[in-house]
Amino acid sequence: MSAFLMAALLNGMNASETLALTEAMLHSGEVLNLSSIEGCKVDKHSTGGVGDKVSICLAPLVASAGVYVPMIAGRGLGHTGGTLDKLESIRGYKTSQSAKAFERIVREVGASIIGQTEELAPADRRIYALRDVTGTVESIPLIVASILSKKLAEGIDGLVLDVKVGSGAFMKTRADARRLAKALVRVGQRAGKRMVGLLTDMTRPLGNTVGNALEVREAIQIVKNGGPSATREITLALGVEMLLLAKVATEPAAARKILERKLVDGSAAERLERMIAAHGGDARVVERPALLPEAPEKAQVIADRSGTVLSIDPLALGLLAIDLGAGRTRADQPVDPAVGIELSREVGDRVERGDVLATIHARSPSAARSAVAKVRAALRIARGKAKKTALVCERIEH
Amino acid sequence: MSAFLMAALLNGMNASETLALTEAMLHSGEVLNLSSIEGCKVDKHSTGGVGDKVSICLAPLVASAGVYVPMIAGRGLGHTGGTLDKLESIRGYKTSQSAKAFERIVREVGASIIGQTEELAPADRRIYALRDVTGTVESIPLIVASILSKKLAEGIDGLVLDVKVGSGAFMKTRADARRLAKALVRVGQRAGKRMVGLLTDMTRPLGNTVGNALEVREAIQIVKNGGPSATREITLALGVEMLLLAKVATEPAAARKILERKLVDGSAAERLERMIAAHGGDARVVERPALLPEAPEKAQVIADRSGTVLSIDPLALGLLAIDLGAGRTRADQPVDPAVGIELSREVGDRVERGDVLATIHARSPSAARSAVAKVRAALRIARGKAKKTALVCERIEH
Repeated sequence: MSAFLMAALLNGMNASETLALTEAMLHSGEVLNLSSIEGCKVDKHSTGGVGDKVSICLAPLVASAGVYVPMIAGRGLGHTGGTLDKLESIRGYKTSQSAKAFERIVREVGASIIGQTEELAPADRRIYALRDVTGTVESIPLIVASILSKKLAEGIDGLVLDVKVGSGAFMKTRADARRLAKALVRVGQRAGKRMVGLLTDMTRPLGNTVGNALEVREAIQIVKNGGPSATREITLALGVEMLLLAKVATEPAAARKILERKLVDGSAAERLERMIAAHGGDARVVERPALLPEAPEKAQVIADRSGTVLSIDPLALGLLAIDLGAGRTRADQPVDPAVGIELSREVGDRVERGDVLATIHARSPSAARSAVAKVRAALRIARGKAKKTALVCERIEH
Repeated sequence: MSAFLMAALLNGMNASETLALTEAMLHSGEVLNLSSIEGCKVDKHSTGGVGDKVSICLAPLVASAGVYVPMIAGRGLGHTGGTLDKLESIRGYKTSQSAKAFERIVREVGASIIGQTEELAPADRRIYALRDVTGTVESIPLIVASILSKKLAEGIDGLVLDVKVGSGAFMKTRADARRLAKALVRVGQRAGKRMVGLLTDMTRPLGNTVGNALEVREAIQIVKNGGPSATREITLALGVEMLLLAKVATEPAAARKILERKLVDGSAAERLERMIAAHGGDARVVERPALLPEAPEKAQVIADRSGTVLSIDPLALGLLAIDLGAGRTRADQPVDPAVGIELSREVGDRVERGDVLATIHARSPSAARSAVAKVRAALRIARGKAKKTALVCERIEH
């Protein structure tokens, strides 16, 4: 297998070969059959970024619009956070569920977010461990087979891909991201699934929080029709694609209108409460985010000059989140739910010397102190105008 | 390591990289130090062919001319025979010797041929097992590192390579053989060894016997100044190169004269006797080859037409030798010392219908019978002249 992985990295694989590998990995374990649930089952997969809490607001929002969302999510590794780590900052939320419980929650609530089980695509875990030690993680066909084998095992009809592009993402360039998105869409379609991919911006963190409980709080703001505009826009853009794949709407504008209504009328928030409760979590958190764990130490990052926020380095903040304890560098490390970074300014904002740029949430005073300088270094403040980058750069449908 | 092997196969390795791998493999175990033996230590390595019994006559011949020959040989696998299997058809010959015994025999007799020990280049055995299952056996840099790591562990000053070319060899084309020879010479020289390579013909079997005891008998004929001309010529050509590397002679003609004298005056035969005795073998076999094991069944292959022997397919005879029991397809199979094929005609010979072309030496009448047709099919007899191919096609010294 190690030799095969290296050959795949060096020689590439075409779509048929990638599909064959995907299906072999898929059938290395159990494949969920959700066909007894009438209605369309659509999931979203993100390639991972900094501050990406979208799954937590997107799944209940889309479920409230009548689409079933069976979502098996991952943990954070390196500078990118993981949805499971975030959800586990909600008291009682159990990300480990049996296939049977997963199916029941999807049926009853419309959305379930759980962790990878031992039974689904077990070959992927073992192959991933080999990719890690053989330097073959970056191979696009191997990434495609890894993602799709797990997603196809969920028993979905369609999949929306959020392929992040930029310094905080796995794919640093638009060309690489497009190549990955196209390969995912093409192989997924060959496997008989409805597929679409969006390339979205990761030259800055998404939204204004990085850290597990902090990000859950932001996701709660989104389902309550609030929160930072970037997180809201990405959530809506992905939600629109999910509704289109599920044929709940035929036009993007109509789909967006449906979703906006669910945010305004409280349906999305109510669905998030039901989803949390169904996984054993304390659903009151949606009403009272103060129930989320809070870090004992806080420190403000004060602007030492006036100007415009020209950029915010997502990789620097992702790595700082690890330092603070919010992330991990090895798969077996625990994470601290409460710590992280809360930004008060976003790219393009005008800043005066003395303004609060961000708040550090830390476990100890020394951790907070050392983080302040790092956050300040991650925000470039100068005269001039910030380069405008679109949140959704490109849509890939074949 | 499997991933590395595939990367080496697909991307190749330059001479420095190959040397680094060779040295890492070499130093995975013990490296013999024969520096206490005064005089030049030169070995010969063949890439393997059908009927290649040259080591058995070459080592004592060259030793009789004053060059020390510490030779660690291999077993047969697939259609190519192995020197160790051949030597073990001599009653009592122990190919398994300690490093200490090996050194003593080289010192006292001038030549020793033993099997690979556990201590020399152990990484090679483990890497070879991985190459076998990862489809990376054919990589030239990996072949070079495998050969040289074992040969450098012998404590030699120089190495003569016999790279076989043709349908009975590992390298089917002159270009491939040249590439391998050049890589071996270049990397060996970088490791500080005197190196030279000959590309020699393997479009036909070497000499007139294929099979363990049969080949030992032919090697005995050679050291007694007899035997088939092709075997004699290859032995002398390689011996000349060994004497030149050892600086026993400065001109090929002078070196050849020395070796011819050792064949004529009985020195080579006497040295073979001493070498066999030193390894616990029955040295009387040199005087009386009839002491070698003999197969219970013999069958003659009779020409069914008149004409010229245009070709003899070495691969077909190599595979037939496996069928008869002389070879193996798996490393753990035993071999039958007595069985094999003895040719009465060589390429270019005139044949009349009814002539004896070959004799099969078999374990059973049925094995002998089924071999007859295969030998007949391996000899192409027709009108016309045989294409003349040089025994030594090319000499590579850098």
